[in-house]
Amino acid sequence: MLDHTHAPGLRSFVTSANGHEDFPIQNLPLGVFSTEAGAPRLGVAIGDMVLDLARLSSTGLINRAATGGAALNAFFALGSGPRRMLRATLSDLLAEHSPHQQAVQDCLHPAADCDMHLPAHIGDYTDFYAGIQHAENVGRQFRPDNPLLPNYKYVPIGYHGRASSIVPSGTALHRPNGQRKPATETVPSLGPSRNLDYELELGIWIGPGNALGETIPIANAADHIAGYCLLNDWSARDIQGWEYQPLGPFLAKNFGSSISPWVITPEALAPFRIAQAKRPSGDPAPLPYLWDEADQAEGALSIRLDVLLMTPGLREKGLPPHRLGRSDARHLYWTPAQLVTHHASGGCNLRPGDLFGTGTISGPIETSFGSLLEVTNGGRRPVTLESGETRRFLEDGDEITLIARAEREGAVSIGFGPCQGSILPAR
Amino acid sequence: MLDHTHAPGLRSFVTSANGHEDFPIQNLPLGVFSTEAGAPRLGVAIGDMVLDLARLSSTGLINRAATGGAALNAFFALGSGPRRMLRATLSDLLAEHSPHQQAVQDCLHPAADCDMHLPAHIGDYTDFYAGIQHAENVGRQFRPDNPLLPNYKYVPIGYHGRASSIVPSGTALHRPNGQRKPATETVPSLGPSRNLDYELELGIWIGPGNALGETIPIANAADHIAGYCLLNDWSARDIQGWEYQPLGPFLAKNFGSSISPWVITPEALAPFRIAQAKRPSGDPAPLPYLWDEADQAEGALSIRLDVLLMTPGLREKGLPPHRLGRSDARHLYWTPAQLVTHHASGGCNLRPGDLFGTGTISGPIETSFGSLLEVTNGGRRPVTLESGETRRFLEDGDEITLIARAEREGAVSIGFGPCQGSILPAR
Repeated sequence: MLDHTHAPGLRSFVTSANGHEDFPIQNLPLGVFSTEAGAPRLGVAIGDMVLDLARLSSTGLINRAATGGAALNAFFALGSGPRRMLRATLSDLLAEHSPHQQAVQDCLHPAADCDMHLPAHIGDYTDFYAGIQHAENVGRQFRPDNPLLPNYKYVPIGYHGRASSIVPSGTALHRPNGQRKPATETVPSLGPSRNLDYELELGIWIGPGNALGETIPIANAADHIAGYCLLNDWSARDIQGWEYQPLGPFLAKNFGSSISPWVITPEALAPFRIAQAKRPSGDPAPLPYLWDEADQAEGALSIRLDVLLMTPGLREKGLPPHRLGRSDARHLYWTPAQLVTHHASGGCNLRPGDLFGTGTISGPIETSFGSLLEVTNGGRRPVTLESGETRRFLEDGDEITLIARAEREGAVSIGFGPCQGSILPAR
Repeated sequence: MLDHTHAPGLRSFVTSANGHEDFPIQNLPLGVFSTEAGAPRLGVAIGDMVLDLARLSSTGLINRAATGGAALNAFFALGSGPRRMLRATLSDLLAEHSPHQQAVQDCLHPAADCDMHLPAHIGDYTDFYAGIQHAENVGRQFRPDNPLLPNYKYVPIGYHGRASSIVPSGTALHRPNGQRKPATETVPSLGPSRNLDYELELGIWIGPGNALGETIPIANAADHIAGYCLLNDWSARDIQGWEYQPLGPFLAKNFGSSISPWVITPEALAPFRIAQAKRPSGDPAPLPYLWDEADQAEGALSIRLDVLLMTPGLREKGLPPHRLGRSDARHLYWTPAQLVTHHASGGCNLRPGDLFGTGTISGPIETSFGSLLEVTNGGRRPVTLESGETRRFLEDGDEITLIARAEREGAVSIGFGPCQGSILPAR
């Protein structure tokens, strides 16, 4: 549903927004920020500035009830109506020739002076496995002839993750210690992970949700998505390999997950909705509860995704980060709506501010892989950087930045802002 | 550490407490209750009554700061010092010949008039797999010759569960719908679970916890346990069998988990601490980070655990519930402290009010199994009830009650209060 807020000719009086690669006036993502002088509160990114919604609401120009507090949970709970209304209002207020330019200007902070926080209190975090190329690439390392398990094309595979250790972009994480047992050793030992990896994912913020015992029909599922972010599901492959059977990953992933702090709304992404890719012939159709014609027609997203690696060696030599992979959200085997509907299909209650990860989004070719496990084929094919350094897995001091950009002819492109994290030595 | 609050001769002026099978004055569990006239607030079970801590604090007899609010998270965060102090104070206030009997009496509500709530806001819920008999019994159904995976005796296996769908005792749950694919069918279908099961577990409430990137040394781990409850990890075995590979159980378990609402403190359980059972010869010793002499000497618990089944047929005929199993917490392969230390060993932050499940606690003999999967050997050996009914798995209208009782010669025995839940038809 495109409206005047998407118009390519629309410009903002915040001049840094015009042509901004992430935050032009067509984006208007929501987040939680603080300044030296002020506690965490809601804001909107516009160019190089952050619009202070708390202060703006005190002018009476926007609804105060919807924009108070220090987290977006209550706003997510309101659903798409108030979100669309706020978008339309903010678009008018921030546009060139806005009659309220002076009042709005007083509510802007330079983004450089703002600290970003988690946008919502995350009640539960679920990580899916909807990147079929990733599932195949990983499965092939264990089962060369039969990389995908029989359930993959029927069940949107997912598991519960750790909410407490989700951190906003910019947070450095210590390399985890854990039990590892390489094939060359007969007993495990505790020590720093030797095979530390990233995973390129999209995050999905849940809106109103459902009561325990209720479900979310696929036709309504999109109404329960409040927005999107980038998610780096850091993974300690050696810990994972030893601990994960039979109940799934645990300490290999719960030492930290990084997200980009701005919530990119479904409205901002409306121009970048696409049809879900046709399943290869021979693949089963989704079961009826996961099938919706409108969702198939425009429930997928076209978003270009990059993984950049900066190392101590590259930094020292003044070299740019190395791109480890370029993928696209279109490669997901399940749409976000299908993930929502599946999650609630047994009656599990989703709550406003819950977070989903899509699973690693790899593309079909080597340069589009979303983890080092795939890029280096489990460490067997190291990457050589322009600095002369090589990488099987991440080293201390390495920094991973995920980038998302949505582009389409005839639309103003938008970005998510970076999801960045670096690795400190193990404690 | 036993003190006067455990004295066998200690009696309460609340006469129903004396000889009460769950809540004598030696127990004093904490919880959150509401009455028709009052919102949720903290309380303590004493015999057939609930002591209203909010009202009691207004008399000045206990510290108001520690006992306000509608959840125990803030109190859990304070750690063992304030908890011990509150216990000592309450023990004196509730004792026979208490000089404050009249003031305290005014703060008592009949338990029958109280609704019990979750005692804390659960930030994250983790389910372990520390019942080795259960792991062997389940493993044997899949791998008769090699039931335990190689990691089991080194790694306290666990996975993240769903916090949103944890409900207090007395909440009825709908049988979940989900994808099932019996071996006799070639494609899966969505429908009500046919193999619905319970799991007998203890719950462990987390106290102060650790910051992200920090660990909890085994010698300090007990300080981070705020208390215990019963936990029924309802499980849809057919959904689980189809969905769980490769990332673990998901919808098979997240439609609901039931807990007993009273938090039994470590102080109340002090008389029932025992040495961790010696590992069978041939088993590896725990890695050093999981080994603590004091924990081995008295870090396990002796708590008798019963599973009772009431069915429509038994109820109709006026028959008592059928005991499906009697087990004991002593059968756990890992101590609660080992679970805490392992969970934090990679830097994952635990927060006050997080909940652990121990995993199903089965004993070594058939009458001590903690799930129908084991009792009926995967449904192949149905149970016949006195009503003439048989059960492979749970039927609609069935009710499962978990009971915990700690007994020891020379100590007053205490109980947890029931963890009860019943099954409504699928929606």
